[in-house]
Amino acid sequence: MTRLVNNPADFPAQLVDGFVRANPRYVRKVFGGVVRGTESKPGKVAIITGGGTGHYPAFVGWVGPGLVDGAVAGNIFSSPSASQAASVGRAADQGGGVIIGFLNYAGDVLHFGQAAERLRADGIEVRSCVITDDVASAPVENWRQRRGIAGGLAVLKIASAAAEDGLVLDEVVRVFEHANERVRTFGVAFAGCTLPGADHPLFEVEKGQMGVGLGVHGEAGIYETDLGTADDVAGLLVDRLLEERPEGSSGRVVAILNGLGSAKYEELFVTFISVQDRLKDAGLEVVDGEVGEFMTSLDMSGVSLTLVWLDDEIEKYYFAPADTAAYKRTVLPDAQLPEDTVFETEASQLEVKKPGSDASRAAGVAIARGLTRIANVLEENRERLGDLDAIAGDGDHGIGMARGSKAAAEAAEWLAEQGGGAQTVLVGAGDRWSENAGGASGALWGAALTAAGNVLGDTEEVTAAQQAKALRAMIDSIQRLGRAEVGQKTMLDAQVPFVEAFEKAVADGSGADEAWETASQVATQAAQDTANLEARMGRARVLSDRSAGHPDPGAVSFALVVSTASDLVGAR
Amino acid sequence: MTRLVNNPADFPAQLVDGFVRANPRYVRKVFGGVVRGTESKPGKVAIITGGGTGHYPAFVGWVGPGLVDGAVAGNIFSSPSASQAASVGRAADQGGGVIIGFLNYAGDVLHFGQAAERLRADGIEVRSCVITDDVASAPVENWRQRRGIAGGLAVLKIASAAAEDGLVLDEVVRVFEHANERVRTFGVAFAGCTLPGADHPLFEVEKGQMGVGLGVHGEAGIYETDLGTADDVAGLLVDRLLEERPEGSSGRVVAILNGLGSAKYEELFVTFISVQDRLKDAGLEVVDGEVGEFMTSLDMSGVSLTLVWLDDEIEKYYFAPADTAAYKRTVLPDAQLPEDTVFETEASQLEVKKPGSDASRAAGVAIARGLTRIANVLEENRERLGDLDAIAGDGDHGIGMARGSKAAAEAAEWLAEQGGGAQTVLVGAGDRWSENAGGASGALWGAALTAAGNVLGDTEEVTAAQQAKALRAMIDSIQRLGRAEVGQKTMLDAQVPFVEAFEKAVADGSGADEAWETASQVATQAAQDTANLEARMGRARVLSDRSAGHPDPGAVSFALVVSTASDLVGAR
Repeated sequence: MTRLVNNPADFPAQLVDGFVRANPRYVRKVFGGVVRGTESKPGKVAIITGGGTGHYPAFVGWVGPGLVDGAVAGNIFSSPSASQAASVGRAADQGGGVIIGFLNYAGDVLHFGQAAERLRADGIEVRSCVITDDVASAPVENWRQRRGIAGGLAVLKIASAAAEDGLVLDEVVRVFEHANERVRTFGVAFAGCTLPGADHPLFEVEKGQMGVGLGVHGEAGIYETDLGTADDVAGLLVDRLLEERPEGSSGRVVAILNGLGSAKYEELFVTFISVQDRLKDAGLEVVDGEVGEFMTSLDMSGVSLTLVWLDDEIEKYYFAPADTAAYKRTVLPDAQLPEDTVFETEASQLEVKKPGSDASRAAGVAIARGLTRIANVLEENRERLGDLDAIAGDGDHGIGMARGSKAAAEAAEWLAEQGGGAQTVLVGAGDRWSENAGGASGALWGAALTAAGNVLGDTEEVTAAQQAKALRAMIDSIQRLGRAEVGQKTMLDAQVPFVEAFEKAVADGSGADEAWETASQVATQAAQDTANLEARMGRARVLSDRSAGHPDPGAVSFALVVSTASDLVGAR
Repeated sequence: MTRLVNNPADFPAQLVDGFVRANPRYVRKVFGGVVRGTESKPGKVAIITGGGTGHYPAFVGWVGPGLVDGAVAGNIFSSPSASQAASVGRAADQGGGVIIGFLNYAGDVLHFGQAAERLRADGIEVRSCVITDDVASAPVENWRQRRGIAGGLAVLKIASAAAEDGLVLDEVVRVFEHANERVRTFGVAFAGCTLPGADHPLFEVEKGQMGVGLGVHGEAGIYETDLGTADDVAGLLVDRLLEERPEGSSGRVVAILNGLGSAKYEELFVTFISVQDRLKDAGLEVVDGEVGEFMTSLDMSGVSLTLVWLDDEIEKYYFAPADTAAYKRTVLPDAQLPEDTVFETEASQLEVKKPGSDASRAAGVAIARGLTRIANVLEENRERLGDLDAIAGDGDHGIGMARGSKAAAEAAEWLAEQGGGAQTVLVGAGDRWSENAGGASGALWGAALTAAGNVLGDTEEVTAAQQAKALRAMIDSIQRLGRAEVGQKTMLDAQVPFVEAFEKAVADGSGADEAWETASQVATQAAQDTANLEARMGRARVLSDRSAGHPDPGAVSFALVVSTASDLVGAR
């Protein structure tokens, strides 16, 4: 969905204006597009590119030293007119001739072809160079008929570096054509984009499916198939590109993983692992990986992979410096660390320093068993707790509790097997909970288990009275760390009544089991009651009106935990 | 929607691994996160940051010379553990002390606080600095309790430059705190993000609404309001930030417009225009505008505006060079062009070089009237033609035809008023159609009108026979430029039968009106028949299986045009 729009008809012009305003050091606006805002060597071959808008950073984001000299900007997904292109070419010309380099689409071929004629009529030497990197759009024997997509950046980068290097017009054209033969792209789409002012996307892909062989103008793929995992998608992309290995390639490649708009960097990085591994498995050396948004289609969701098959000339020009609004290849100011640099960092290790007493070891086994049950219950309730948290928070409570309790249970099981007492088991479990859950609740649960363990020790028997003390220490540590008070709609609202009920039951002569039973019912009710509290504005955490009437997820998960396991702190 | 996932539980670790693989020149992986892959000055103060993942480029993308020394990476939206943070701090330490600078969230406060303790225990001098730029999360009198969001980048950038400049630990802390007081952010959300592996977003915003005061962990806003235009959103953001002007500010500001994930660069640029204008209107000088994705929330849709209120020290450090995977501030290799550089570029001008004969002027008036009717019909059919085009193409046919015909009609009306004959009117209209429509169809219609005009001239009477010649010239030019043939599912499939029917009717003695009537019925039927053709794989344009059974949009729009206006080439 494209949401930030004034008048849809003005959108293309406004986006170029806004880009120019944000990037005065890189570009100047001219009729039809932008040219460099910096001085170029007189007589340098100028390269202009362009096409429809909606593909940022293509094409205006690539104007600057080391990359192109100008970019023509049409309407959304629509080739610019001949007079726009001629205007940009005229402004970019440095007396060394102009190359118009563009993606192979019918409209662009027509308009840029007419523009070349107009520039020639003005006495400017002009060459048209067409980018045809999309392997999906025609079979390899008709590769000159293929569309141009994200690999266009690599082709323009290489040719522009040759122009910057002082090569004459026909030499730069040769490098351009050579680069175009060495750059191949293949892509998939998960969801279509929505044009500014429209209320539905250009196409839709069924859930769990993907369109294979996308175009950058919002075209759906050539066919649909199951989406699969990130690794599956990487496999599909790599396999197709490996079908065409250009002659004379050195076996060194650059891999460019391009997001089409709504694919996130995080997803692209996850996918890149498998891309790199598969290319290595095919005997290729991945000299460089570029992961990001290089050519988009508004908010289209999808990804494409480009391979640049290097040779000495292409490698030299690909890695030459460039500095534009959206693409920078720098020379780092500091030296690289030696390859073999070792950093002294490590995760904390689990360890039973001293075996527990028989009684405390029995409590340790019970605690481990209890934590395993808790982990199972929290896993079952993961989504529900996440949804509760999403009402006013960041929705990670379910996943954090599930992950933390699972790690805690595994640590506890291992420590109990090694003969750890109640303290060793609880402190180890608390560490792992905190390490793995993340978030505030992870830290609080970690501290709580540690505090309880420190009360119980590794040698004493775990009586009902000891349990009451351990539970009190638990909530004290949570109160201290979290700096919350009862009534603020946090887990404390369930914990304090729970511990008070437990203490009272024990004082009244109940055994541990009975006290847990009573207290956990109190906790469940108290957690539910947090739904009736007013929303609050708290320290470093904002609860909006949305939270009113919904129970606090931390209180709910606490009640779940204590209802599940009376042996959380070593029953019997 | 987060689609490229292997196992959701492994997603956070894999995204960091993939990032490191793609950026070996910038970072090295350590337990808990990443540190610089380049050498730093011994004794330099090290700054580490971090938090949950899902915010790329925050935080790992900011590690490198001129920015931070290390970044801790937790689970999605979930603070990292104390031992992760301690590990990264240890690896980043250069002997000058470590600053842990992080966004103000409960979980981060807890874990980073514990990490600081651990580093202190290792004998490392540590300071914790908290970022609190989000004006929506607490009133100004409680600004230290505010959350940290996208402005964190600016605070870290400024403090890191001070560290790079050789300042000692407490001085860098002072700069950090000072920068934090000068950086304010306010944001709005349009749609929530979906956690990897989840099948629904964390929250939803009703269509046409926006959540005001978003958080970067996928939290919805504090309240909802009407979305409005890009200008409205800019106004909301600027007005709120202008309520808090820090004391001692020079009136010079940097404006950072941040997309939360699915807001597109194009939208952000459109919005930036109004942001800059409103800040200028408030008497501020916008020294620099940064527009892009700096701190995201997976695929959340939204935008935030950060103002950096400069003074001499902040300005110096903000603009110091930096070179990281995701944030680069460079020194351009070439000099800026002089401010007053003028580029010789212009749009083509409409002009009546010689008034037409009375008969040809009358034809010109009829042509202009016809084009206006055509423009109205194409505007009415804009969406329908776009939808037809979206089936196998890029969906721009409707908007292109509407825009092109409107510009053509306006040009024709003006030229007819100025006394232009049929040729002048048609050639001018054709130029404008091509200029404004973009795309292949724009170029083809432009060429077609020009060809027809050149047949009719500015002096001759426009007879039915002349019209037939003009129509034949029209399709000849389209066939020549578009290099298509009848039967390939293009507009020619309607045009050729139309012209043949027209020619036959005229040869059989029909008048122009009658011939148009007959021929346009033929065209309508022929356009419909393109739906029955097989999908084709054509030059520079791929029609997938999807197009089978749907009529070609170009043929349909041609039939619409000729059915609307028998005076397209000067009736009577």
